[in-house]
Amino acid sequence: MIELTLIGIGTGNPDHVTAQAVQAMNAADLILIPLKGPEKTDLAELRRGLLARHLANAATQVVEFDLPLRDADNPSYRAGVSEWHDAIAAAWEHQIRAALGPDPAGRVALLIWGDPMLYDSSLRIAERLGKRLPLTPRVIPGITSIQALCAAHAIPLNAVGASVIITTGRQLRAQGWPPGAETVVVVLDGGCAFEVLDPEGLSIWWGGCVAMPQEALIAGPLSAVSAQIVATRSALRAKHGWVMDIYLMRRDA
Amino acid sequence: MIELTLIGIGTGNPDHVTAQAVQAMNAADLILIPLKGPEKTDLAELRRGLLARHLANAATQVVEFDLPLRDADNPSYRAGVSEWHDAIAAAWEHQIRAALGPDPAGRVALLIWGDPMLYDSSLRIAERLGKRLPLTPRVIPGITSIQALCAAHAIPLNAVGASVIITTGRQLRAQGWPPGAETVVVVLDGGCAFEVLDPEGLSIWWGGCVAMPQEALIAGPLSAVSAQIVATRSALRAKHGWVMDIYLMRRDA
Repeated sequence: MIELTLIGIGTGNPDHVTAQAVQAMNAADLILIPLKGPEKTDLAELRRGLLARHLANAATQVVEFDLPLRDADNPSYRAGVSEWHDAIAAAWEHQIRAALGPDPAGRVALLIWGDPMLYDSSLRIAERLGKRLPLTPRVIPGITSIQALCAAHAIPLNAVGASVIITTGRQLRAQGWPPGAETVVVVLDGGCAFEVLDPEGLSIWWGGCVAMPQEALIAGPLSAVSAQIVATRSALRAKHGWVMDIYLMRRDA
Repeated sequence: MIELTLIGIGTGNPDHVTAQAVQAMNAADLILIPLKGPEKTDLAELRRGLLARHLANAATQVVEFDLPLRDADNPSYRAGVSEWHDAIAAAWEHQIRAALGPDPAGRVALLIWGDPMLYDSSLRIAERLGKRLPLTPRVIPGITSIQALCAAHAIPLNAVGASVIITTGRQLRAQGWPPGAETVVVVLDGGCAFEVLDPEGLSIWWGGCVAMPQEALIAGPLSAVSAQIVATRSALRAKHGWVMDIYLMRRDA
């Protein structure tokens, strides 16, 4: 039986690691470090740095491997994601059997960017892997980009007693400002979906690569700072080869 | 000038503390531990335990004090909260001047349950305090009850590519299931607001006192587990004198 621990490690600040995450790293027989996409160097560096600092168990195997890429040309977004998750589960299985033998048992861990619960596919991939190998999933929460964004700007997520909507760039682009919403947080935005909104009466708190050394922060009325965000995001991508950003928007009281 | 650091400490599991939180505790000249409500013993114990384990700076003063209580009889909820926040800011100011002198300077920290960004008033109180004392606020994120809930149940927060609404028991009771919502997280629920919903087609993942030693977890179709949640919540309150719970509900696919 495999115990598969998904360890949230935060989004770039190594000091966001929790004591529980450090314990889980050191309890693992095998830690898998998947490499993917243009950001792979920076994110692998973060993981390597955390292990160099915190992993004291000499018996823990650490294995890096390339992940299959998602077929972005699949006309169905959900079908494309589903096939990709199957391919990743197969890649995890291959690495686990290679490291722990054909009938593997023990503790396997992955270091998950942010928290495994938030717009991350690892839990769904683990479910698929569970059909190929007997396993028990376990989750260690980690600081998310939403928290790093709010902390960097020193703002609350919610207005007093009010609701918050967390959505994706894709949804915001398709549906506009959610009816009646006061606070909207946008994640997984491939490119400045806030530009589809009427900026009147909206403020934005934006962060590019939050909690990483290259972090950039901009806040203000959406109408006033929108162009500056577009330019800063583009400059981050040009300089580092990748960018992940996140933003919170609030309707002015 | 005061640097006021709001340190998120998670919701009960001492291993949820981050390295950054530990550093901020040890950098503080003064740590304020407010005591309030029926849960004050358990929550103060958590804070004392974290400091006993992590605070190595002998020069750091630790001061416990009673907080003023909110006037729950104020007919306006927002006005009642506003007056209460003013009273808390005055209490913080009193403790800071008592410890650091009439013209105080240095680093003051508070250990905030969860994360200061999530349904917590400390940032708003700090803003009020800033009108009484020159100060710079700083936020250290901590693991929230939402994360502890999802980790305990090993579930993702969101459906693939979909939105999430975080709301309060008060809002859910007043407005019912948010139109079009797929996933709804309910916080600050004084008493099982899910009972107002038509349970058909809804599943719930509930946690009482998540991440604390007395944690209780229940999951299933809302129609099947609703009564069990009500009874478990009531038993937790009877046994410990207080209860805080949180839940995630999803419309079945």
